Amino acid sequence: MGSTSDLPVMEKAAALLNEFEVPFEINALSAHRTPKEVELFATNAQDNGIEVIIAAAGMAAHLPGVIASMTTLPVIGVPINATLDGMDALLAIVQMPPGIPVATVGINASLNAAILAVQMLAVGDKELQSRLKLYKESLKNKIVEANEQLSLVKYKFKTN
Amino acid sequence: MGSTSDLPVMEKAAALLNEFEVPFEINALSAHRTPKEVELFATNAQDNGIEVIIAAAGMAAHLPGVIASMTTLPVIGVPINATLDGMDALLAIVQMPPGIPVATVGINASLNAAILAVQMLAVGDKELQSRLKLYKESLKNKIVEANEQLSLVKYKFKTN
Amino acid sequence: MGSTSDLPVMEKAAALLNEFEVPFEINALSAHRTPKEVELFATNAQDNGIEVIIAAAGMAAHLPGVIASMTTLPVIGVPINATLDGMDALLAIVQMPPGIPVATVGINASLNAAILAVQMLAVGDKELQSRLKLYKESLKNKIVEANEQLSLVKYKFKTN
Amino acid sequence: MGSTSDLPVMEKAAALLNEFEVPFEINALSAHRTPKEVELFATNAQDNGIEVIIAAAGMAAHLPGVIASMTTLPVIGVPINATLDGMDALLAIVQMPPGIPVATVGINASLNAAILAVQMLAVGDKELQSRLKLYKESLKNKIVEANEQLSLVKYKFKTN
Amino acid sequence: MGSTSDLPVMEKAAALLNEFEVPFEINALSAHRTPKEVELFATNAQDNGIEVIIAAAGMAAHLPGVIASMTTLPVIGVPINATLDGMDALLAIVQMPPGIPVATVGINASLNAAILAVQMLAVGDKELQSRLKLYKESLKNKIVEANEQLSLVKYKFKTN
Amino acid sequence: MGSTSDLPVMEKAAALLNEFEVPFEINALSAHRTPKEVELFATNAQDNGIEVIIAAAGMAAHLPGVIASMTTLPVIGVPINATLDGMDALLAIVQMPPGIPVATVGINASLNAAILAVQMLAVGDKELQSRLKLYKESLKNKIVEANEQLSLVKYKFKTN
Amino acid sequence: MGSTSDLPVMEKAAALLNEFEVPFEINALSAHRTPKEVELFATNAQDNGIEVIIAAAGMAAHLPGVIASMTTLPVIGVPINATLDGMDALLAIVQMPPGIPVATVGINASLNAAILAVQMLAVGDKELQSRLKLYKESLKNKIVEANEQLSLVKYKFKTN
Amino acid sequence: MGSTSDLPVMEKAAALLNEFEVPFEINALSAHRTPKEVELFATNAQDNGIEVIIAAAGMAAHLPGVIASMTTLPVIGVPINATLDGMDALLAIVQMPPGIPVATVGINASLNAAILAVQMLAVGDKELQSRLKLYKESLKNKIVEANEQLSLVKYKFKTN
Repeated sequence: MGSTSDLPVMEKAAALLNEFEVPFEINALSAHRTPKEVELFATNAQDNGIEVIIAAAGMAAHLPGVIASMTTLPVIGVPINATLDGMDALLAIVQMPPGIPVATVGINASLNAAILAVQMLAVGDKELQSRLKLYKESLKNKIVEANEQLSLVKYKFKTN
Repeated sequence: MGSTSDLPVMEKAAALLNEFEVPFEINALSAHRTPKEVELFATNAQDNGIEVIIAAAGMAAHLPGVIASMTTLPVIGVPINATLDGMDALLAIVQMPPGIPVATVGINASLNAAILAVQMLAVGDKELQSRLKLYKESLKNKIVEANEQLSLVKYKFKTN
Repeated sequence: MGSTSDLPVMEKAAALLNEFEVPFEINALSAHRTPKEVELFATNAQDNGIEVIIAAAGMAAHLPGVIASMTTLPVIGVPINATLDGMDALLAIVQMPPGIPVATVGINASLNAAILAVQMLAVGDKELQSRLKLYKESLKNKIVEANEQLSLVKYKFKTN
Repeated sequence: MGSTSDLPVMEKAAALLNEFEVPFEINALSAHRTPKEVELFATNAQDNGIEVIIAAAGMAAHLPGVIASMTTLPVIGVPINATLDGMDALLAIVQMPPGIPVATVGINASLNAAILAVQMLAVGDKELQSRLKLYKESLKNKIVEANEQLSLVKYKFKTN
Repeated sequence: MGSTSDLPVMEKAAALLNEFEVPFEINALSAHRTPKEVELFATNAQDNGIEVIIAAAGMAAHLPGVIASMTTLPVIGVPINATLDGMDALLAIVQMPPGIPVATVGINASLNAAILAVQMLAVGDKELQSRLKLYKESLKNKIVEANEQLSLVKYKFKTN
Repeated sequence: MGSTSDLPVMEKAAALLNEFEVPFEINALSAHRTPKEVELFATNAQDNGIEVIIAAAGMAAHLPGVIASMTTLPVIGVPINATLDGMDALLAIVQMPPGIPVATVGINASLNAAILAVQMLAVGDKELQSRLKLYKESLKNKIVEANEQLSLVKYKFKTN
Repeated sequence: MGSTSDLPVMEKAAALLNEFEVPFEINALSAHRTPKEVELFATNAQDNGIEVIIAAAGMAAHLPGVIASMTTLPVIGVPINATLDGMDALLAIVQMPPGIPVATVGINASLNAAILAVQMLAVGDKELQSRLKLYKESLKNKIVEANEQLSLVKYKFKTN
Repeated sequence: MGSTSDLPVMEKAAALLNEFEVPFEINALSAHRTPKEVELFATNAQDNGIEVIIAAAGMAAHLPGVIASMTTLPVIGVPINATLDGMDALLAIVQMPPGIPVATVGINASLNAAILAVQMLAVGDKELQSRLKLYKESLKNKIVEANEQLSLVKYKFKTN
């Protein structure tokens, strides 16, 4: 992430990766304030055994694109809502030029970034695939249960 | 893709996958007009040996999200510019709720979708990783060559 | 609705339907987390005696469009303001492709969704038509009374 | 519609209604230039046997809302793209205040307005319901056929 | 104004008119809920001695345009910020079709609406012109005084 | 206007003023390139017998606001669509600070600016009021005639 | 700045200039309320020894552009977020016509305006250049230290 | 610039610099495709005698910010309109985080970028200051002449 101020948003990603028992490291690296450190991280990531990178940044959010320019690993970008409801960060991340994609998720969607990372890692990993299916099932069950709670709400002309 | 009218945009993705010798199938499936066919495709994709899905759609672009709701494979979403400069499609694809990510690329960015798919497949594939590095090198070389051409352009006070 | 978190917004719709003595059921069904349950609901709705469907969702709001793709009943879409002031939800609901309309109301406009549903049901129902006229009359009277209150506010050079 | 310049957009609605054999009348009535004519039309519509109204307008598009203020019939609003990609018309139609809904369809989506009108009329009309199902089937078949055409397109590494 | 909920915003207009000793009346009239009352007001305004109309409304703000359609008096429109930061109201007021202008001021800018009204009335009124000049002078003086206060703020390297 | 490139848009205003036999002068004055000339124009306008000013500008459109800051005459602002569909010009004109209003019309709406100017001049001018009523009548008649033409268009199930 | 209400935002600029020991003066001057004072300031700035001007304003933010029209000194514009998340101010400042640039920084980005001013002054000033490098180094160090703190945060499957 | 496709836009900057006899070099360097070349350029720019950098880029325009992160020279950013009317590039350039400013000019405003660069260089250069004043004078004269041409246009009721 571009700044430790993004930590409250990004903790959901860490928690999800823990839940899936996927090892990860977490860094604060700014495309604009620590370009050299970003370069070191990005160019060495693959050799350091990293397989997927999640990069979060707000405003003129360059971090995901800058990392993507220096590695062939898939880079997931999380636009952080710091200004303009996050629209500046979304456009600065998703509208990459031909040749250098960033896999962009929704504004502040750190949880989805982590799930997407797990989905990428699961491409060749049956165990992770199974866990993803259980996770999807649990998402469904929460809604199904909520729906059952809802049927207890009484309205005069409600039919069910 | 949601409609064969998206083919001119999506052909760049097919060409890139050919260049990387990555096998693929291409379908026109509409989240709104052929929901049953979309469901059949999405729920059987993993069993049919598909590892990554690219879904392109315009306007209220539901196809990527609907497919993502029915599979745990990574789904790459391409917003097609049909109306409103593609902003409607971008928001309808990227702003997915917690739990169901879509890896969104730029508006009409079919080439980037294909590269991102290759990057995902390359996570456990050294051969693809090498080709990605060569591809990145070739992108760089095109700019370097263009830059050299540029140095031939004469301006009176240009210094190089 | 896509989530029980939308209930505070949608309760106004329930209250209005009660006021018009129109029977209804209320469900939490997520286009993305419970696609199968949505399909069951939508494909059986007409056979279950449902005549109009109101679907509310936020962000990349697919629920109304997904339901509309699976039924020929009129579907009313309510964009919920979860992010971006609700603009993402509005565009994701209203910009449906040719052939599959969603009758979209304003952002968070659950009351209007319910009135619109009553207007549709009233097409062939004289009794509901009468109640709608009384309701419209009561809306008018509230403004007329407020206007009368306003005439009591004193400004130095106010003429009435 | 607010002006005869909207006719090229709105003719698709007329064609669809013809296809469904639904009788209709078509008028150019401007909320701003012919307010009296709009009032006559809207207040007498129900007595004249009209059951659903489609109103199209661009820019500061008041026509659908003004008609909705004068009748309890369901009013379908079509935002016409005259300026600002139609965003001004969309917001001026969809963001109605509590109590007076307009069933808004997408920008320039006259076809969807007509289908929505048929869906409303079909609430109590089995014959129209059947035709709607056939129409939906035909939409599906067009995509299915397009998809079959697509399978004939040859790419080197395409798998189907 | 379209609703008494707009009163807190519009009171600044009333205060300014009092300050200029310009007689006025204030009404809550809704384009959508009391169309008949709006028509009565607008069509009789000139005969009732009204010379300029200020109309404020939020969301799909039709009130200024509807009044403008029924009178040849100048109509000043005030977009009220009820949703979408007031952008819906601004566009619904300012983007009037050719022939029926609304003199639009900024979002929630009731004070400016009142000043503009005074400027219009001052076209043929020397006394009002003089007061406007004094008012403009007083605006200037407030800034000039604030600027003098500012010179008392001490910064180490501040030069004045 | 800020530039002679705005002349094609603004000629409609000149034509309308001619139609109403309202004397006017037309100038190209740039808030940014000729600030001194703008100041001379604005500060002397009232003494030169000018009663209403129409100012048109595009992009960061400062001309209307700058003129308004230097006169107490009513200033009508016309946002010209030079970039961003004219949204930059609209916001730069309409969002004036408290105390200095600009009467803003729609993007490129030079005709409406001229009508609004006539409405302001008509406040104390019975003759102009009469012409405005005739003009409004003629607008209505054009729509009524167009509507009659429309009734000649034949659709199979059209009822009138 | 256009108003003393902008002082809380602009104090960061003053603090930064103090930190760099760059002499400055600070004024509240409104393009709209004190045009004459703005003109005096801008036309005399260069003769008064001013080398760079920072101008901050919100809404229809004309101050930077108006100053830029009256001087050949570089003018840095700071859009203040007063309404519309600051988008109106950003567009009103950055979209200057050809010939009269304003060096625009981000919304409310007073700190960056001051740094940019120092960068301009440093063009011919080795001492300031050195301080800028130290400042940049300190920005980097803050992130590097934050990153080290981050490594102390424990997650179950975190690897560093 | 990020790509030679930006050359048609950026040639106006080269022409202006020629007009002012300011030496410059011109490069195509992509933040995303040639990050190493960008780093070499940016980190060595000051040692190579460069005093001001103009960086132009479209879409997720990172080039200006990336260069600004690697130098303390002032960096002028030109948002290129490649998609979304250039709004993505504008936000990706102007919304820089605290500490690393980019002096942003309008969308496609390469001429203004060059003038701004000259203004920065003129801070300590009397000769350039004189030329800037002559240039500003010539801008004014073009408008004054255009205005004189305009006075020849005849309208019936035009007064001058």
